[in-house]
Amino acid sequence: MEALVIHAAGDLRVENLPTPELGAGQLRVRVRCGGICGSDLHYYQHGGFGTIRVKEPMVLGHEVAGVIEAVGAGVSGFAPGERIAVSPSQPCGLCRYCQQGLQNHCLDMRYYGSAMRTPHVQGAFRQEIVVETHQAHRLAASVSDGEGAMAEPLAVALHAVRRAGSLLGKRVLVTGCGPIGALVIVAARRAGATHIVATDVSAHTLGKALKVGADEAINVAEEPEGLARFMADKGQFDVLFEASGNERALRGALDALRPRGIIVQVGLGGEMTLPVNTIVAKEFDLRGAFRFHEEFATAVELLNKGLVDVKPLISATLSYRDSARAFALAADRSQAMKVLLNFD
Amino acid sequence: MEALVIHAAGDLRVENLPTPELGAGQLRVRVRCGGICGSDLHYYQHGGFGTIRVKEPMVLGHEVAGVIEAVGAGVSGFAPGERIAVSPSQPCGLCRYCQQGLQNHCLDMRYYGSAMRTPHVQGAFRQEIVVETHQAHRLAASVSDGEGAMAEPLAVALHAVRRAGSLLGKRVLVTGCGPIGALVIVAARRAGATHIVATDVSAHTLGKALKVGADEAINVAEEPEGLARFMADKGQFDVLFEASGNERALRGALDALRPRGIIVQVGLGGEMTLPVNTIVAKEFDLRGAFRFHEEFATAVELLNKGLVDVKPLISATLSYRDSARAFALAADRSQAMKVLLNFD
Amino acid sequence: MEALVIHAAGDLRVENLPTPELGAGQLRVRVRCGGICGSDLHYYQHGGFGTIRVKEPMVLGHEVAGVIEAVGAGVSGFAPGERIAVSPSQPCGLCRYCQQGLQNHCLDMRYYGSAMRTPHVQGAFRQEIVVETHQAHRLAASVSDGEGAMAEPLAVALHAVRRAGSLLGKRVLVTGCGPIGALVIVAARRAGATHIVATDVSAHTLGKALKVGADEAINVAEEPEGLARFMADKGQFDVLFEASGNERALRGALDALRPRGIIVQVGLGGEMTLPVNTIVAKEFDLRGAFRFHEEFATAVELLNKGLVDVKPLISATLSYRDSARAFALAADRSQAMKVLLNFD
Amino acid sequence: MEALVIHAAGDLRVENLPTPELGAGQLRVRVRCGGICGSDLHYYQHGGFGTIRVKEPMVLGHEVAGVIEAVGAGVSGFAPGERIAVSPSQPCGLCRYCQQGLQNHCLDMRYYGSAMRTPHVQGAFRQEIVVETHQAHRLAASVSDGEGAMAEPLAVALHAVRRAGSLLGKRVLVTGCGPIGALVIVAARRAGATHIVATDVSAHTLGKALKVGADEAINVAEEPEGLARFMADKGQFDVLFEASGNERALRGALDALRPRGIIVQVGLGGEMTLPVNTIVAKEFDLRGAFRFHEEFATAVELLNKGLVDVKPLISATLSYRDSARAFALAADRSQAMKVLLNFD
Repeated sequence: MEALVIHAAGDLRVENLPTPELGAGQLRVRVRCGGICGSDLHYYQHGGFGTIRVKEPMVLGHEVAGVIEAVGAGVSGFAPGERIAVSPSQPCGLCRYCQQGLQNHCLDMRYYGSAMRTPHVQGAFRQEIVVETHQAHRLAASVSDGEGAMAEPLAVALHAVRRAGSLLGKRVLVTGCGPIGALVIVAARRAGATHIVATDVSAHTLGKALKVGADEAINVAEEPEGLARFMADKGQFDVLFEASGNERALRGALDALRPRGIIVQVGLGGEMTLPVNTIVAKEFDLRGAFRFHEEFATAVELLNKGLVDVKPLISATLSYRDSARAFALAADRSQAMKVLLNFD
Repeated sequence: MEALVIHAAGDLRVENLPTPELGAGQLRVRVRCGGICGSDLHYYQHGGFGTIRVKEPMVLGHEVAGVIEAVGAGVSGFAPGERIAVSPSQPCGLCRYCQQGLQNHCLDMRYYGSAMRTPHVQGAFRQEIVVETHQAHRLAASVSDGEGAMAEPLAVALHAVRRAGSLLGKRVLVTGCGPIGALVIVAARRAGATHIVATDVSAHTLGKALKVGADEAINVAEEPEGLARFMADKGQFDVLFEASGNERALRGALDALRPRGIIVQVGLGGEMTLPVNTIVAKEFDLRGAFRFHEEFATAVELLNKGLVDVKPLISATLSYRDSARAFALAADRSQAMKVLLNFD
Repeated sequence: MEALVIHAAGDLRVENLPTPELGAGQLRVRVRCGGICGSDLHYYQHGGFGTIRVKEPMVLGHEVAGVIEAVGAGVSGFAPGERIAVSPSQPCGLCRYCQQGLQNHCLDMRYYGSAMRTPHVQGAFRQEIVVETHQAHRLAASVSDGEGAMAEPLAVALHAVRRAGSLLGKRVLVTGCGPIGALVIVAARRAGATHIVATDVSAHTLGKALKVGADEAINVAEEPEGLARFMADKGQFDVLFEASGNERALRGALDALRPRGIIVQVGLGGEMTLPVNTIVAKEFDLRGAFRFHEEFATAVELLNKGLVDVKPLISATLSYRDSARAFALAADRSQAMKVLLNFD
Repeated sequence: MEALVIHAAGDLRVENLPTPELGAGQLRVRVRCGGICGSDLHYYQHGGFGTIRVKEPMVLGHEVAGVIEAVGAGVSGFAPGERIAVSPSQPCGLCRYCQQGLQNHCLDMRYYGSAMRTPHVQGAFRQEIVVETHQAHRLAASVSDGEGAMAEPLAVALHAVRRAGSLLGKRVLVTGCGPIGALVIVAARRAGATHIVATDVSAHTLGKALKVGADEAINVAEEPEGLARFMADKGQFDVLFEASGNERALRGALDALRPRGIIVQVGLGGEMTLPVNTIVAKEFDLRGAFRFHEEFATAVELLNKGLVDVKPLISATLSYRDSARAFALAADRSQAMKVLLNFD
């Protein structure tokens, strides 16, 4: 069984790993498709991000779909041959945050392809993987493997949108329209936002934003004052989703956000210098959004029912054996949104 | 100028009224289309409902769309010839509830075609009406007059849905699928509910419910235990919209609603005998929903952008001169949802 | 070791039971004091309530405090001789509701002295009991055993108050001022309510209500229209805590509750006939409140710090051997609030 | 009639102004006591703050209490001789934010002693002032003029506390314990917080913090790692009130704040560089708090009922003719919290 293993920045190898053993209550899954996420890119390009560094070989990947090959003893409700999306999240269930329903803050979280803890949690860019049944979410026949692999980033976007409360009838600004920002647009539209404006610096990206539901797109590289027309009466947007992680994007949006406006920061960013006096005087509500929990099931259900369409965001599907080209393409915002790897 | 005036139960007359005078800041509107609401039916059939009785001749109607004929002095932003939906709601803006943003609880509310106060507030089933600019909401060319007249009940449904908080990813039950219940389905789908089950006793009604977004329809007249399959684990629905005003509908749904489930009661109902111990033990949250405020603008925006489709709910359009037939049809749930009156 | 065992209505016996075995991670507790709750009274007077009936001998009691006698293997953080309040609540931790932080809705709840499931969960009116460490909450030296036994009903009241959201600056009505209603007053005052009005039909009870924080007390037996002075402008109270379980109390309060007012129903009640049209038109928010979870720790912390005073609510302390007299006194609202049993 | 007029930084003069004319519906008030606020200090020391500068002579002051001298035509409910606290806030009541109940974001706000708009809004450090009845809040006999002057900053603190939602049972950290931070402690205790930790760099200030309700005080100048003991399990505090406006205070508190913790930023601050990745990964909720609206009435009611005690925060009362000394004292955090001016 082969897997994509990161050893250090720029050093991503196809390696042979033993097929993992199938335990009671588990499923062995033939991985078919995996999406390259921004964190995969960071590991590949920089060996990590912030204080999180690759310290030992780690299989990358946490956005995958596949088909069940075998079910362990005592498993009911799943059968070989069924196609599933796999949630990469394995909270402990027992810590104080799990017991509060905040599993994404689990004190003992295991998340595929993450170097946050050592030993690292091995990822899912591999041909075969063994998962718990709670990680498996059946895909409808109408949903492709690639769309199934999008369940994970869609879950991130749904979680971000839920952090904002009800969007029904709201005016929404999304700054930064990479895969997460674009999926936030998908989710915000599904959640009933009446007007969605997207900003980015890439024409390709903004074109996709329009395709998946934005009402207007503003290229702030070309039109730096593009948000000025939303600044009347202290600001016109009810909610801002900041998905770029870029300080200028956040700062530039504040005058267009109404008093008591909600900012959901979903782009990780690093240090940002912010006008705290504005946050105070306009009583903004700046909320972080991180990963997801029950939203994975929601993502799959929305895909299965055709209530969202993520297909316009799939830019290409390449073989995992062609990972260098795939990662390069995934990093090129002028031509790609989500790039998928094929593990067949 | 002609209007439909209710004098007593069963006594609805076409009468000639003087064209109202156009004041500064106002609009004179040629009414084109008006929807018959349940309250109009009650006035017509019973002379009122509960303690609210018709005590003097009153023009019926509060769901209308039309075209601007003339604008008063000082009006900007509106011009003759523009098509609008007219909000029937005129809160005072000054009382304690208006100043809290709860205009639907205004202490001095004027609402078209309502006998709640005496003198009654005259309604909008008339050929010409003068309105304030804040009542006027421009319709897109793609929206018919009939759809425009649906803005009001859609606003009621949107308000009910917003009372439930975010529906994104929620499992929703709607009991009673008359026009309001059906529009709640439209709104809940738009707001991101992942699974919507509708119950009613009319096959016609349930057919419409499926057409506008319900995933499943249960005819509880034919299948009284139809909700039993949702009762595992203390109940499967997150939110119940009770739109029938029927005690049995509400009681019958409680075992299918999960602990901490939200019940939005939008059907007015009267006295109901309820198992309060169940409400306590399952910690339900039973919220009334009454009329709307900012949701009227949301309704028009959703219609204008094609983000909701209310056309399947329009059963027929008859001349206002044919009101007896129109009201009889509106009262017949075996063949009609919303019946519209044409005022040309 | 002796315990108070209910066999049937009116048949409450002191019986000898074997001392429970102390397992790893557990504490053996010498029970010192136990409060008689309304449910204990129901088992004693009627053999149960609603569909819940005593079907086999059951030790009563779930409000107790005591002293640790011995600690099981592997226990840290507790030592013999420490005084504790004991939470009677043992959720499973694993079911879907526990994993959502809603442990009071656990699908496999074990709650002391409850006949909700069969075999019944044996209670804590006994001289010795073995508990899990998560049930044990250390009492400060300043807190008496009797006050410690009040932690459980105080937790119920705190949970009810938290169901209402922030009370800071709110005007609060409490209908029914038995032990739970009175403790709701204590909790509402602690939570920052600015004006608290209590109603009941017992002068003794209302005297206690005033003593623990109510600003006004209205005896609705003597002054049935006593709430009329709070009905201006559609109602003056922001929040109603209904703690009587009495339909007339709830109905009588609705006109004194402002639109969008919150009703927390904490009195279990049975069937009630309610004016649902009023709930709709005033958009009330009627929330059930049932038991507690994290509020037990809060109750003990508030007691330990002297931030609440429950002493005025302790009417008498009798020996468990004198249970007939104690239960009779507990049932007499003209002279008693909380009656405690001494297990020494 | 004399007033304290700021002309420029350091140029604060006692000047004679004409007694304002009393209009219909208004009250003429003999000002007795006024509190020096941080913004008064900024005008005095620096001629303003941020982009807000004194551009013309302006009477300072917005925290005052006094006695009604005369009532205008048509006034009911107020009589000469009554003592009142005066709210400095005059929202327009008509703009979109006023109509949403967000009067503190009024598009046409007039706030005493503020140079935010030009002409500046003249302040209340004067012997006589004419106010609207909605600005007047009667003081109980038990409340001194000085305490009455504290109603305004107490309202600011209450508003900040309400921005956090319910505090009942919560663990609270307050960074920066000047007058606002100290009043936040008062309000948080009143709102049911179970544990309150205060940090500051001044021993005097922290002594006052302990006096008004903090459980622990940490001098972060002497003990920079003082919060380390609250960092277990990703952080122990539920809510942080940041009242220093100091970047280091905010940054230093983040590791002691639990995931999903709420940060209420009430200290205005300016630009701050923040670790946005931490805000995202721990899903903090950073909310600005600015001024108040209905909380002014709440503040007076809490004072009138003795439910809060602000007396420990009054450091000194000096004559307005001695303003230089008073302002110097107010600026000295080693010996003063709130300094009051006497206008008799």
